[in-house]
Amino acid sequence: MIDLISEPARIPLAMLVVFASAKLMAEVFERIGQPGIVGEILAGIVIGPSLLNWIAPNEFLTALAELGAMFLLFRVGLEVKASELLTLGGTATLVAASGVVVPFLAGWGILLAWGASGNEAIFVGAAMVATSVGITARVLAPRNLLQATASKIILAAAVIDDVFGLLVLAVVSGLSRGQLNVAELALTGVLACGFTIAIAKWGTRAMEKVIPRLSENLRVGEGQFALAMCMMLALSLGAIYAGVAAIIGAFLAGLALAESITPRVKDLAQGVTELLVPFFLAGIGLHLDLTVFSEWRNILLAGIILVAAVISKFVGCGLGALNLGKADALRVGVGMIPRGEVGMVVAQIGLGLGIIEQHVYGAVVFMSVATTVVAPPLINKAFRGLVTAGRKGGSE
Amino acid sequence: MIDLISEPARIPLAMLVVFASAKLMAEVFERIGQPGIVGEILAGIVIGPSLLNWIAPNEFLTALAELGAMFLLFRVGLEVKASELLTLGGTATLVAASGVVVPFLAGWGILLAWGASGNEAIFVGAAMVATSVGITARVLAPRNLLQATASKIILAAAVIDDVFGLLVLAVVSGLSRGQLNVAELALTGVLACGFTIAIAKWGTRAMEKVIPRLSENLRVGEGQFALAMCMMLALSLGAIYAGVAAIIGAFLAGLALAESITPRVKDLAQGVTELLVPFFLAGIGLHLDLTVFSEWRNILLAGIILVAAVISKFVGCGLGALNLGKADALRVGVGMIPRGEVGMVVAQIGLGLGIIEQHVYGAVVFMSVATTVVAPPLINKAFRGLVTAGRKGGSE
Repeated sequence: MIDLISEPARIPLAMLVVFASAKLMAEVFERIGQPGIVGEILAGIVIGPSLLNWIAPNEFLTALAELGAMFLLFRVGLEVKASELLTLGGTATLVAASGVVVPFLAGWGILLAWGASGNEAIFVGAAMVATSVGITARVLAPRNLLQATASKIILAAAVIDDVFGLLVLAVVSGLSRGQLNVAELALTGVLACGFTIAIAKWGTRAMEKVIPRLSENLRVGEGQFALAMCMMLALSLGAIYAGVAAIIGAFLAGLALAESITPRVKDLAQGVTELLVPFFLAGIGLHLDLTVFSEWRNILLAGIILVAAVISKFVGCGLGALNLGKADALRVGVGMIPRGEVGMVVAQIGLGLGIIEQHVYGAVVFMSVATTVVAPPLINKAFRGLVTAGRKGGSE
Repeated sequence: MIDLISEPARIPLAMLVVFASAKLMAEVFERIGQPGIVGEILAGIVIGPSLLNWIAPNEFLTALAELGAMFLLFRVGLEVKASELLTLGGTATLVAASGVVVPFLAGWGILLAWGASGNEAIFVGAAMVATSVGITARVLAPRNLLQATASKIILAAAVIDDVFGLLVLAVVSGLSRGQLNVAELALTGVLACGFTIAIAKWGTRAMEKVIPRLSENLRVGEGQFALAMCMMLALSLGAIYAGVAAIIGAFLAGLALAESITPRVKDLAQGVTELLVPFFLAGIGLHLDLTVFSEWRNILLAGIILVAAVISKFVGCGLGALNLGKADALRVGVGMIPRGEVGMVVAQIGLGLGIIEQHVYGAVVFMSVATTVVAPPLINKAFRGLVTAGRKGGSE
């Protein structure tokens, strides 16, 4: 294990092992016609505790992974217009809502049928709700597909989904303690919605006024990049305080800055993103621990949860987007499948509260990782028509 | 203290506090006509334990600081031709050698005169030897002064200085334990020199053959950047195993890649550098702890050590570069003054071995930080002539 290596070598060694194996596996996957992102996630499984045990998740790698997810969403936000997301708000809310209800009911029902306690069933339902939009964004961005209607619905719905997820988690945690403070819950909801909507609505205009004026007057080198980094960190922090995930804040910062910063700043941010994203992706794989699957019963449960997670999200979100036509509904459905780090966080909270048993936790983590591996090829297939359309100059 | 903040907020909050205050102070300093880099170091002192105590050095910030120094040197390496450094090797060795001997004797003599033990005097002498070339490089790079002869001498001498520093530290640690294994020492020296010279001499040619061929065939996105990052991490690691500092490895990686990677990859690396360097600079300031200076006697010792550190390095390195003419000798002399993180590491080893007393450690840390604050304005002044000459089209 790399933790045993001499102090000064620890950081570059851990970084080299994770980064190089992620990129190597991405290259192998691209060569066999599969999405590179799947290779990067599988690299984490291969070098992690599940297989080779070269490296285990530690505080530093977890921090890099979080930063990687933040920069990924920030960079995606830089390519999208907030106003366009807002006009799609209605459909996106519908997608997010039915993408919350259907998976929740599926997870809850399966666990009850399995004989689990009511609280455990509710927590697994909550873990099924989460969407890890970073995975989908990373598949779509390099193909210039972020401008497609389905992509924008996915991005907007993922943001709304995060707010819903927050509320579901608050309700679930409250129920499991036998008390539900409705006033507190309402405040949480208002704060999270208020923060998100305010920045999506007025952030762009505010930045268009502030950034050019500030940048002109800054004497420090690469001043606009420094401003962008401060915005990204500040809004990530604001998001955490408002109750939503840091990546939502980072995404909103990107949205707000999209139309006021120079292409050079986007390139500089791209450098950080390219360095850090492999830590996010491999980090998902690192968290898988196959030792939970020593019993057939557990393997069966994990398999059922995985199948239910894929189908319920696909059906739930797809139904919500049916008014866009079948093709886009299909794209939205597959784009919302990945659970990734978000599902794991919910399961971890349940484990910490003593509500979820270890083998159920293992099954939820397996589902979270497996959905990120299953989704990218499906996303590629669903968007294939658009790649050609995009090249012809009209992707919508 | 930020350590007490809720878990998910910890990382973005610590990053925002350090990054924003460093950039803010840099801006203030640029506006009053001082080098921004001094502001960034002072920001660390202001927000650190010395003054506001908003934040203390922790494992994560230390890791970012180390990465910042590595990326800084990597980025500098990308702008320099290894062959040109090698042709200046003779003068650079002379500069490094007399820049080691004079400060060592100064530190040793002062501590002996102060009544310290022989071992403590030797350790302080060793801490006076270190050069933190990152500071000087960060002052020169934005002004396009890395191509000046004096700059190249400084870079080459700093690398050689690191090898000498390694040997001095090995000798000193051996002496303090009362045993000196000459064979082991020789092996250390040969390994460090061999690694450095081999990469400086053959790295560029090897990369010119490998990188274009590999990049052409890579399917993964931003593949050349991924290759460059792997090289940087691998050579930093190689440097640590060869006994020299990680930043020397990063610098050598930059040198080796300078002529084979695209400007886009340099821009991407620049993004990471711009994000991380403030953590390196403010990190130096964070380590200062003024509580050691509660006694007049300690303040006096710190003052004497600081003055001796500045003068001895200036005189030692300046004398070594006299054959380049007075103006360049002066530039080389001031360019080698910063001790920064390297001096602190030596002092920390001495403290860990129980050889250096706490107040002497405090004095050495103060000297290490203060030289990084004193040097940039002197470097700017010494290179001022070259800025104009450079603009006229001939900087050498």
